[in-house]
Amino acid sequence: MKLIEGGVCAAKGFTAAGIHCGIRKSRTKRDISLIYSQTPAAAAAVYTTNLVKGAPLTVTREHLQKTGGIARAVICNSGNANTCNANGIEIAEGMCALTGKALGIAPEEVVVASTGVIGQPMELEPIAAGMPKLVRALSPDGSADATEGIMTTDTVPKSIAVEFELGGKTCRLGGIAKGSGMIHPNMATMLVFLTTDAAIAPAMLQKALSSDIANTFNMVSVDGDTSTNDMVTVLANGMAGNPRIDAVGADFSAFMTALNTVTVALCRMIAGDGEGATKLLECRVSGASDEKTAKTVAKSVICSSLLKAAMFGADANWGRVLCAIGYSGAAVDVNKVDVSFRSAAGEIPVCKNGAGVPFSEEKAKEILLEREIEILVGLNSGEAAAAAWGCDLTYDYVKINGDYRT
Amino acid sequence: MKLIEGGVCAAKGFTAAGIHCGIRKSRTKRDISLIYSQTPAAAAAVYTTNLVKGAPLTVTREHLQKTGGIARAVICNSGNANTCNANGIEIAEGMCALTGKALGIAPEEVVVASTGVIGQPMELEPIAAGMPKLVRALSPDGSADATEGIMTTDTVPKSIAVEFELGGKTCRLGGIAKGSGMIHPNMATMLVFLTTDAAIAPAMLQKALSSDIANTFNMVSVDGDTSTNDMVTVLANGMAGNPRIDAVGADFSAFMTALNTVTVALCRMIAGDGEGATKLLECRVSGASDEKTAKTVAKSVICSSLLKAAMFGADANWGRVLCAIGYSGAAVDVNKVDVSFRSAAGEIPVCKNGAGVPFSEEKAKEILLEREIEILVGLNSGEAAAAAWGCDLTYDYVKINGDYRT
Repeated sequence: MKLIEGGVCAAKGFTAAGIHCGIRKSRTKRDISLIYSQTPAAAAAVYTTNLVKGAPLTVTREHLQKTGGIARAVICNSGNANTCNANGIEIAEGMCALTGKALGIAPEEVVVASTGVIGQPMELEPIAAGMPKLVRALSPDGSADATEGIMTTDTVPKSIAVEFELGGKTCRLGGIAKGSGMIHPNMATMLVFLTTDAAIAPAMLQKALSSDIANTFNMVSVDGDTSTNDMVTVLANGMAGNPRIDAVGADFSAFMTALNTVTVALCRMIAGDGEGATKLLECRVSGASDEKTAKTVAKSVICSSLLKAAMFGADANWGRVLCAIGYSGAAVDVNKVDVSFRSAAGEIPVCKNGAGVPFSEEKAKEILLEREIEILVGLNSGEAAAAAWGCDLTYDYVKINGDYRT
Repeated sequence: MKLIEGGVCAAKGFTAAGIHCGIRKSRTKRDISLIYSQTPAAAAAVYTTNLVKGAPLTVTREHLQKTGGIARAVICNSGNANTCNANGIEIAEGMCALTGKALGIAPEEVVVASTGVIGQPMELEPIAAGMPKLVRALSPDGSADATEGIMTTDTVPKSIAVEFELGGKTCRLGGIAKGSGMIHPNMATMLVFLTTDAAIAPAMLQKALSSDIANTFNMVSVDGDTSTNDMVTVLANGMAGNPRIDAVGADFSAFMTALNTVTVALCRMIAGDGEGATKLLECRVSGASDEKTAKTVAKSVICSSLLKAAMFGADANWGRVLCAIGYSGAAVDVNKVDVSFRSAAGEIPVCKNGAGVPFSEEKAKEILLEREIEILVGLNSGEAAAAAWGCDLTYDYVKINGDYRT
């Protein structure tokens, strides 16, 4: 497997575009994106677990049910979440109808998503007006523009693609993502659009996605708020010509590995670009009695506001790691817990068997001043492990969210 | 019932003191407090639910078990949590032994607590050296000093007392509290020391306390972090001479009302003094199908980092209220949810039946610029209600916690 360029257009037969159509006032910010597959593609999606669900998610789910998991296009705007609006469903369906008409495909073959402020009236007019330009802009080089079109408070575009082999054929899988705030485990906590030219049955594609997100996007938290709108979707158009994956086996495993490589990379990008973040935090838990315990502990550590603030200050306040383990709800023997901090500058053990060990504050500071920090937790009670990703809590998080709407 | 002065010494027969003994380097900060009852008092306590528990909590629990719920004194230091230390139990028992010896009471009659940094070595020497001075300082006017001695990042002392009637006798109940960060529902989330001269059996006192905290201290959240060390304790020495409360009934209800008045006031003080807070937030949920739903929703709203940041910015971003309700885990019909913001400057409805309603941004801003904000959530699905208290998320929270230890 190797990293390649092209993002969401790296796979054969996919084009993309992103333009400014007028949903956002700023004319310099692209606010609508389109991804298109030359041929019908198997499609799978996972949705937020928030009971308040954006209208686009409802519409997408209905579409994939109607088509039996086949789609041709993804349309997504930024600047308005189209959520908690009286006519949200109508707007989301309108977006699909406009897209379908412009591309000559059925509205049901369109996946729709929106991101932005909740509860603001939304108009179809700018999208209708911009659609011809958007379709004309579709290009195999359009991934970067499409990425820009879905960004909200993101400070960097998030994109990656890999090349891998299936049944002697070269396949590609790539994706783009947006996500910076309102990100928390237990759902597809952001917008992620993945494309691949591998041939895989819709049911197997859904299985691969659902299984993967449990260890990837559901293990990312920026602020503990689970958004109403976010989803992860993958389209697989089969143009690589590999024997179609219809069951588990070696090919399915190889596909899962490629998928995981892409999703973990996007998770790290999303966590590292958390609103106001200066550091990417990765909590690696090992020695857990079972996977659920490992995940619960890793998430709890990554979600602690106090630890996040300490990491911002490069303060090796490991007591806050223990505290977060203690209230996680997992049945952990706290007297067996070891904690270390690790980064490019080295590794330092700070807690052994639940109690502090002497360490150099100077060395710890040096380690914690790096941009990417690992918090290593050993539970010494079994073989299970898990990782979770997050970021530090900074002045800028407060600034960004103190007045987001106005 | 009326408010009176005196805090933790308002009840007959209680004295208190707080001095600097040397646990903290700053000589101007009191770091140890003592509360003393002239006569043996019924004692009850509730403890953190964090699996990582401070050694003082373990020792206090053992003491109250040994004495059958009787105590004479409370000793509490700030500056060191005495948690995750190899010799924590020894230190906490040493504190009780020193206190018992100085007061001429059994070590088991002493309740012990500590607050401060976790996992730092702690020495008994400063406490031993300061004990004679601390005991000499005991005074009916000592509540303010004792309050100071338990403060950490608190910016204001927290104290209140009430006078009420039981069986024709005038009784008093008062208390002091500390708590500013690492505060979250589902435990005694702070240090609260209550005293009363009402006569009440230990079992009834524990029943009153355990029942009360479910609606008070467990409904306060500053940062979502559940501390390792905090507890709420109440001593009742019976010196008011009322007929002892041995069962539920009118007197028990009157006692519960007095207790609730004191604890709600302390909850509001703690939430309003949340680390870095500029605003007290109170979420009042009504129309819930049951109390658990009401509580779950109220807590989820008060804990949302995004909403807390919006309140800091006086931004009426009600979508974040709906979002927090949606991910709370409660089974809520989101299409029936109404939301209003209220403060001394008025009340403004912003969401009706789960969708936005037009409102004056100017008026909303005026309401949200006040120091105390109510977030009113109507679920329109039943009769149950609940309240939760929290605060806004500010630059100063990050500053305070970015480098707390050094």
